[in-house]
Parts: sequence; structure tokens; C-alpha cells
Amino acid sequence: MMDTKVIDVALGKKSADMVILNGNLINVHTREVYQSDVSIVDGKIAGVGKLPEGVIGPDTQIIDAAGKYLSPGFIDAHIHFESSMLTFTEFSNTVIKRGTTAVASDIMEITIVAGLEGLKEILSEAGSLPVSLYYPVPSFMGDESEFQTTGSVLSASMIEQLLPLDEAVGLAEVLVPPILAKSPESEKVIALADKLKKTAEGHAPATFGKELNAYVSTGIRSDHESTTKEEALEKVRNGLRVLMREGSASTDLKDCLRIITEDNIDPRHLAMISDDVDALHLVSLGHMDHKIRMAVKEGVDPVAAIQMATLNPAESLKIDDLHGSISPGKMANIVLLSSIEECAVKDVVAKGSLVVKDGSLIEKSVPPTYANVLRNTVSFFREIKSSDLLIKAQDGAEEAVVHVIGASPVSLLTDSLEASLPVKDKYVACDVSQDILHIACVERYGKNGNIGKSFIKGFSLKEGALATSVGHDHHNITVVGTNEEDMLVAVNRIKELDGALVVVRDGKVVGEIPLSIAGLLSLESAEDVAKEQEHLLTELKEMGCTMASPFMSLSFITLIFIPDFAITDVGLMDVKQFKIIDPVISWR
Amino acid sequence: MMDTKVIDVALGKKSADMVILNGNLINVHTREVYQSDVSIVDGKIAGVGKLPEGVIGPDTQIIDAAGKYLSPGFIDAHIHFESSMLTFTEFSNTVIKRGTTAVASDIMEITIVAGLEGLKEILSEAGSLPVSLYYPVPSFMGDESEFQTTGSVLSASMIEQLLPLDEAVGLAEVLVPPILAKSPESEKVIALADKLKKTAEGHAPATFGKELNAYVSTGIRSDHESTTKEEALEKVRNGLRVLMREGSASTDLKDCLRIITEDNIDPRHLAMISDDVDALHLVSLGHMDHKIRMAVKEGVDPVAAIQMATLNPAESLKIDDLHGSISPGKMANIVLLSSIEECAVKDVVAKGSLVVKDGSLIEKSVPPTYANVLRNTVSFFREIKSSDLLIKAQDGAEEAVVHVIGASPVSLLTDSLEASLPVKDKYVACDVSQDILHIACVERYGKNGNIGKSFIKGFSLKEGALATSVGHDHHNITVVGTNEEDMLVAVNRIKELDGALVVVRDGKVVGEIPLSIAGLLSLESAEDVAKEQEHLLTELKEMGCTMASPFMSLSFITLIFIPDFAITDVGLMDVKQFKIIDPVISWR
Repeated sequence: MMDTKVIDVALGKKSADMVILNGNLINVHTREVYQSDVSIVDGKIAGVGKLPEGVIGPDTQIIDAAGKYLSPGFIDAHIHFESSMLTFTEFSNTVIKRGTTAVASDIMEITIVAGLEGLKEILSEAGSLPVSLYYPVPSFMGDESEFQTTGSVLSASMIEQLLPLDEAVGLAEVLVPPILAKSPESEKVIALADKLKKTAEGHAPATFGKELNAYVSTGIRSDHESTTKEEALEKVRNGLRVLMREGSASTDLKDCLRIITEDNIDPRHLAMISDDVDALHLVSLGHMDHKIRMAVKEGVDPVAAIQMATLNPAESLKIDDLHGSISPGKMANIVLLSSIEECAVKDVVAKGSLVVKDGSLIEKSVPPTYANVLRNTVSFFREIKSSDLLIKAQDGAEEAVVHVIGASPVSLLTDSLEASLPVKDKYVACDVSQDILHIACVERYGKNGNIGKSFIKGFSLKEGALATSVGHDHHNITVVGTNEEDMLVAVNRIKELDGALVVVRDGKVVGEIPLSIAGLLSLESAEDVAKEQEHLLTELKEMGCTMASPFMSLSFITLIFIPDFAITDVGLMDVKQFKIIDPVISWR
Repeated sequence: MMDTKVIDVALGKKSADMVILNGNLINVHTREVYQSDVSIVDGKIAGVGKLPEGVIGPDTQIIDAAGKYLSPGFIDAHIHFESSMLTFTEFSNTVIKRGTTAVASDIMEITIVAGLEGLKEILSEAGSLPVSLYYPVPSFMGDESEFQTTGSVLSASMIEQLLPLDEAVGLAEVLVPPILAKSPESEKVIALADKLKKTAEGHAPATFGKELNAYVSTGIRSDHESTTKEEALEKVRNGLRVLMREGSASTDLKDCLRIITEDNIDPRHLAMISDDVDALHLVSLGHMDHKIRMAVKEGVDPVAAIQMATLNPAESLKIDDLHGSISPGKMANIVLLSSIEECAVKDVVAKGSLVVKDGSLIEKSVPPTYANVLRNTVSFFREIKSSDLLIKAQDGAEEAVVHVIGASPVSLLTDSLEASLPVKDKYVACDVSQDILHIACVERYGKNGNIGKSFIKGFSLKEGALATSVGHDHHNITVVGTNEEDMLVAVNRIKELDGALVVVRDGKVVGEIPLSIAGLLSLESAEDVAKEQEHLLTELKEMGCTMASPFMSLSFITLIFIPDFAITDVGLMDVKQFKIIDPVISWR
């Protein structure tokens, strides 16, 4: 785009809004670091290098970057900001301090709960914030209503409405099964993305060999589901941009980085992403800065690590015309670091304005007043009794052989386990000694009163229950517990709060994070949410829980696309068979 | 794009059209080489790696690539195929043997001579050939008629017609002066390219510092005019994709490669291109294979050299969805090499068919019968006398101080020189002893009879003349000579042949290449054209000429955008002042 003011400032014919002098430029085009000045006007970079006479006028803001490094603003190419439990405004307040200036977030969770109207509220909120929000459009707006109940049914025609939007970078999360099944709907939406020259982002957990070949053949551009070095290597070799994930519950980055540190492959098609991170992770560890530090610690060249958080994600998303490097014409998103290796963010210029100084926000952005569509989103079809959360036994049965969801502390993948459980008082009991706990998923839109029930291993609770109104991709209320009374207390408390994370012990709520916006987002600050998260973790630990991110993990045990097992309000989902199955295998 | 047949072959559910077994895959995504098989169907790559059972059926063509390397087909991201003097069919016959499977060629020369109708003839010719022709649309369809006469006036509205075409990859050759002048026309066409998400390719000779910043700020994606290491480095640092040129008259590659071999920069944004190569170069040295050999010889990692001829140009042109790597879904363009370092092309698969075997074409493509618009394109407004080719002296003058075009044997840039020349018989004489020769440019469309006249240094002819109907971007007849009689013979012979390269000595034509298609292209084979080119060079050498590529150099001395001086039918062009100037500075 030709901007005549930018040309004039580049040529020194007009003065800049801002100049950054004496910094050490991290050039991600060439993988070099050298001294360079930068001029900025109209939110864009005009000059880089030795600036001409005339660029500094009486109103030009001068930033002395002597001794500092200038990095392009960091980009998270795949995140669901809703997982932070923060409003987009507070998310922006939080990550901008860490140097993030652009994210691609598909906002599907809000849309599932509150429809297009809810989505548009968020896009409008984001427009004025320092962090640029790009919006990949959910690709699988198929009718999944036989497997789960949602607030809003996403329809295929929405894709045709949404994909042409400027913020819409492409299709999000194109799944493997419909591709392998040659679904005409998938064919249609991929063709539309192609026509618009937008990306089709992938979602291909544990996909290898011929299935990976078939999947990639459709032009899918990226994937963020690699959990091992081997998977990442095979995917990048196939031509996928591999987005290496470091989220709260999915910590795949360290293993994936071995394709650089051990196999020495060209890192141009690698980027680092979050997928899902909670407020505690963002506040205590950081965002892209944390991933850069991890990469450097694992032995990646520091400038290559910066590339994996700037140019590489920008090219993957096809937004490198505006993002990903400090060069003329790009958006003026510049992070001043006191050290590259430590990725120590001092100051941040976003959209041409200094927004972070010495690690602190100059001005904290304030969330808007949210429309009704995003509030009061939790209601029950009928009152729930504690026994509704249990599996009723067959008449005369003394024991049940059941499927058990095997949750992992480090991965979103679940194992398909089995267990024998006793029948007590006409219901299948859990077995705390074996860590086989109750899990239930309660329909929360007031539509049908569904409650899906099964068992889960991995949380190691010895008492009490935890429950959440966050559960991909339907956001019904999921509860895990050692007994149905505590579970019911937790579920009812979530209803009272219009959404929440809740921990219950001995019939009492001992910790909670209200999520009154769509049952997904808190109106509190990141620090407060993080603090309460820590409190919940402490309580859960005392109750025996061994999961690193129990709520984040729980919110994905509901996702019908991650093998082996998931739970929804309809029941236990066998992902590989792609159908709801009876949680009980046999009665004895 | 989802192709159900490709998915079926990838999965082993249907048999492939072709499999290539046991080859060593050059993976340009990761910069690795390892053993891999490839399956192909419908002209596309389906499977890469270990192929599933079922992929080889009774009709599957099996190619054993044991001991060979599989490279993606080579891509020339910036060439004017017309400079080869071959029809596109014969160009394709020639470069496919060298492993080239896609070129971006703007076909502007044909359009200048024969308009849109001529352009469409070529696009239609190319469709069925193994080499994919991409078409960058000329960006400077401004009215240059005050500086030169052309067959067809390219209009700005043509861009709006042409840019949306599928073959049209973007804008070609966006010039620096209109950008620095903030031309509204440039703004408009760049905005159109942005909207269509197509590229804007640059043309920024000797542009540095603040001018380079201003130019790049408009989103120009690439530049192919770097003649030194320093220029290439500054451009790639500014975010341009640097297309390093190795043409017949412009041999910039070796110096530019030093940014890799000396400065060790990330080569991801570097590619190698031809710009203008003649048939002799293609037949004797090769095409992209020659550039890869050069890069390896200069010390570039061989696989990085392959990347600079495959993935890098594909990404620069934004055609990496179909080109640039051997991965599922890409066009099946695969080059089998017996050595990477030597880039020794054995077999070539293009669009899924084996077209070259052991270095020879399996079937030579035959050019179509060309439409009239491409024939009979040379005519004169009036008969020309030999004195018309000289500069008439002022009454009484004995000497003239004149501008002299300083031609370079290795660069398209010209120097602005001066000389004092005697007046003889009322005309300014040349001075063979100082190598100051006559140059004239004769309008050849029969429109106005213009003849531009000046002097040139650098050809070192001691006798005779050479003339050509190829002269960017107007393609009038340009002639250089030691005397006006030989010059006239050459000019008239070109008219007789409807276009040609001609060498005249002692009043006789001693060598010629007829270019009867638009005055630009020969109907002969590449080998015959190359042989005649060698003959012309031998004749010229005997006549004293020291230029390496005298005809190629001459065809650019007419280009009004390459500093310092150019000649057109209107006169001597001062490129920096961007105006026609009097070739005579003063009379004495």
C-alpha cells in the first residue's frame, strides 16, 4: 500500500511521529543484528537505517534505544484467547507487556456460546487495542448437534459471510477426518479460502504417513498439533508450517525444538504458538517471550528463535505485508529488549505508539460494557439432582466394566482405558483408590437437560470436585469429582455465577473464578485471575490432584476431535470411531 | 484445493499415474536429503515417503530413481522470455531440458509491439506446454509516447483487465521514480494488486538509503536489479526478496552471492533469476541449472542453492501452493539429478508427465501458426537515407562537444560520458580511434519516421555496423556503427526480414538472425539461433567488438529507465533527469 506520508518521512521531507535511535536491530530477513535507527509515522515504519535530515521535527517523539535490541513485535499464529479467561482487552494488556503485537485467534468459543452477534462484539472491542487481532474462521461449522449441544449452531454459510472479512486470515482448524472422507463441505470451504488467497490452517493430531500425505494434498498450510519431534519433522517435511505449541496443558515445544537442535533443519517453516494458555501461565511465565527463552535455552540460535515468533508466523498467516519484521511499510510494532537471549522486554511500540515503558503499561486499556448476548448465558433445562450426575446400574448388576478417559498431565491426547467398578445403591461407583473418578457434562443452554456421564483417570482427587463452564467446543459444564454431592454443589455454583471455574470440598465452595462473560471470560485483571488460579491449584493439590493444569486439561477432555476419548453433554465420545458410545462395556 | 483423486492415491485406494521410486529427495522445506518415493496422479504429487500398498496398478508408470536426486522443478521468478529470441514453445523445449518447470515472464515486449491481441496469442500458446508460464502484468503502462514510439500504447486500464487473470501473478517492474513522486497511478495499481493479494515486483536499480526505504514502504515484494553485494544486502535487509540476476548481459549473481558466502545471511529471501538471457546462453550454459552450479561453485550449500531456484522463488511469487517443493498437492514437477553439486539434469517430470529422459526431450513441442498481429510488424514512415542516421552540424561549427552513452560489458547501467568530435561534411563524425561510434534508433512502426541519434562508447568496432529490432521498451531499430552506409544497410535488412539481428561489414550483411515474430522471436530452433548468434559474435569480434553480449547490451541501451543514458527514436534520454536531451552540448 502506498502511503504518501510514509514516503515523505522516509525521504526526510516530513518529520516523523517517532524515531527510535541507536538501537541494535534484529533483522529477521537476514538473521543479523546491527545498529540502526527507525522512523515511524501514521503507525507505520518509514525509515530504517541511517535516517535523513529533516526526519526529527519539534513534535517527534525520540526514543533512545542505546544498549537495547529492536525486535519486531511478536506474533502468536494460533491461540484461542478465551482460554486465558481474560477479556480481549485484558488479554491485550497482559501480552503487550510481553512484546506480543499480533495474534491469530479464532474466537470460536464466544461464537459457540453467543453466535455471530457475540463474535462481532469481540472484533469491535479489539479494533482499538494495541494488539492486532486476526481472525481465522472456524472451518468445521458442520452440524455436530448429534454429539453435543451448543448455544449457537455454527453453519457452513457463516464461513462464506466471515471469510471475506479483512480480519479473517483464513480457515481455522481444518480437521483430518472430513478430508480423508473427501467431504464436499470441506472441499467447498477450502476452495473458497483458495479463491480469497487466504490460508487453511490445520489441526492434525497424531497424523502420519499416507493420511498426512492425503491431508496435506488439499493445501493445508499449517498444523499446531505435533506432540513429538518425530511428528513435527514429518509434518514440516510434508510442507506444513509447523506451529510448535507451548500451552498451559500442552507443552510440546521442547520436544519439537529437537528438529532444530538435533536435526539442524531449516527453521523457516517453524513457529511457536500457544493454542491455549491461561491467565496464570501468561502472568507467571509470559507469552511469546517465554517461548523464545525456551528455544534459546534448548540451543536454538537466538535470532532464529526471534524469527520463529515474528517473520515465520507472519509468513505462515500471509500477513507479512504488515507484520513480522522491522522494515519500511510494516506496522510499527517494535519490542525493545535489554537482552535477546533472555528476551527481556523493556519497552513496546505498537501501531506506532509507545504503550509499554520499562515493562509497565503506560495506559491500561479498559474493557467495554458488554452486550447482553455475552451475559446470562448459563441456564438449566430442569433442576439437577446429584444422582443425575451418576451412571445408573442395570437391574441386578454388581459390577460394571467401563470405559475410562485417561487424562494426561502434559498432553491434550487422552488414552482409552477400561476399569471394573462396583455398583453401589443402584449407581456405578467411582474408585478413588484406583483414581477412577466420576465425570459428567451438564448441558448449560437450557435447551434439553442432557447430562453425559463417564469415568476419568489422571486427576488423582482424593476428595471433592472441580467444575468448569469452559469445555471445547460446546462449553457445557464439565465436572469431575469423588462424590456426586460435591459435584452438584460445583455445578449449581457455576449456574449462579453465569459461568465459572469452581472447586468444592466437603460440600463447600473453596475457590472460584467467575466467568460472567459468555461463561468463558472474567472481568477481573489478569493478575487477580492468576492469583485465584493459584489458589484453586493449591486447593486441588491439597485434595490430591496431580494434574499440572487441571482446568485447562478438563476443558479439552470435552473436545470431540482429540483422540481417544471425549465427553459431551450427549455422552462419551469415541473420537477414532467418531461416535457416542455407551460408557459401560458390560455388566456383571 | 481438494482433489479427491489425489487423496485416494495418497491413501493407496487408487493407483497412481506414475511413481518415482528409490530417489534421494531434496527437501527444500527442511534443507535435507533423504531416500523417498513419490506418487503422482492428475499432474499432482499425491504421496511422498513410504508409499502405501495399492498405489502401483497395472497402468502405473514406474520410474526407478535409484542413485538419483529428486529436486523440485526449477523456477525463474523473473525473465523476459522474448530475450531468448525463441518462441515460447521453443523456449520451453530448451529450458525444460535444464529442469525449469515454471517461469514468471511479463511478455511486455510482445504487448508493446502487438498489443493485447499479441499477448493473448502467447498465453494461449503456453497453456499446453510443460513449462508453466506465469504472467506479471507491466505496472508502468503510463503514456511514455513523448519519449518513444511503440506499436501499441499500453494503457493503465489494461492493468485492471489483466491483473485478475489466473496466470497474472502480480505487477511487474514497479519503477522507483513514480513511487518517489507519489504518483496516483502507481498508488492505484499497487492498491489493486494488494486487493487481489498479488505481488508487486520491483525494479530499483542503484537504489539505496532513504529512497530505498521510501520505495519499499509501498509493499514492493522483490527486486532483481542488484549489481553488487552491497546493494543486494541493503535490499534484503529492507525486506525485499532479492532476485539475483545472471543474464546474458547482466552477470550480477557472483557478486551478490557474497552476502551468503561472506556475510552468512539467511538465504530464505534470495532467489536466482535470468531477467534477460539469449538463446546462446541457454544452449551453451543452461538456465537455472547454470545458476545453481555457479552458487555451489561460489561456496553456497548445494541444497540452499536448490532452494534459491525452487521454494524461494515460489514463495516470492506467492505460487508456493503449487510450485517449489516436492510435497503432496503440489504440481508434479520433479527434476532427477545425477549430482546436486553439478546440478546434472537427467530426467524431468513436468505436470505429471515424463518429458525429458537422459537429458533429451521425449517429444519436442511444435509452435502454433502465429496470427497476423505478430507478423509483418516492421515498416518505415519514409525511406531512410544514410545521412538521416547522423547528427547534422550547426552552420560553421568545426567541432561538437557531445554526450556519449558509456556502455558496460558486464552491466546494463550506462555511464554519462562526453567527447569532442570533429564536424565532417556538415555532420558530426564519430571517432573510431577513441571508440566513439554512431548510434541511431529508427522508428519502425511506420508512424512518424523518428530517428534518435547520439554517440556510444564501449562497443570498440573498428569497422561496419550492427543493428537490432529488439530494443526495450519500444523495439524500434537500433543501430551502432562506424559509418552511416553500413548502418543503413543493416537497418534496411531488418525491415526486409520483418525484424532481425544484423551485422554488416563493407556494405554487406555478414550475419543475421531473422526475428519474424513481432520483430522479436525467431522461428528457428534454439540450437540454430545459438549457432547463428555465435557466428554474429565471431564476425563482430573480427570487426573489433569487445562486448560480451553486444546485441543484448544494445537492446537495453534503449531502455529509458536504466541510468544514466538511453536512446529511443525520439532522441537521447537522460534517465536521471527523465527527459530527452540534445546529444550536442556545445558547438565550437
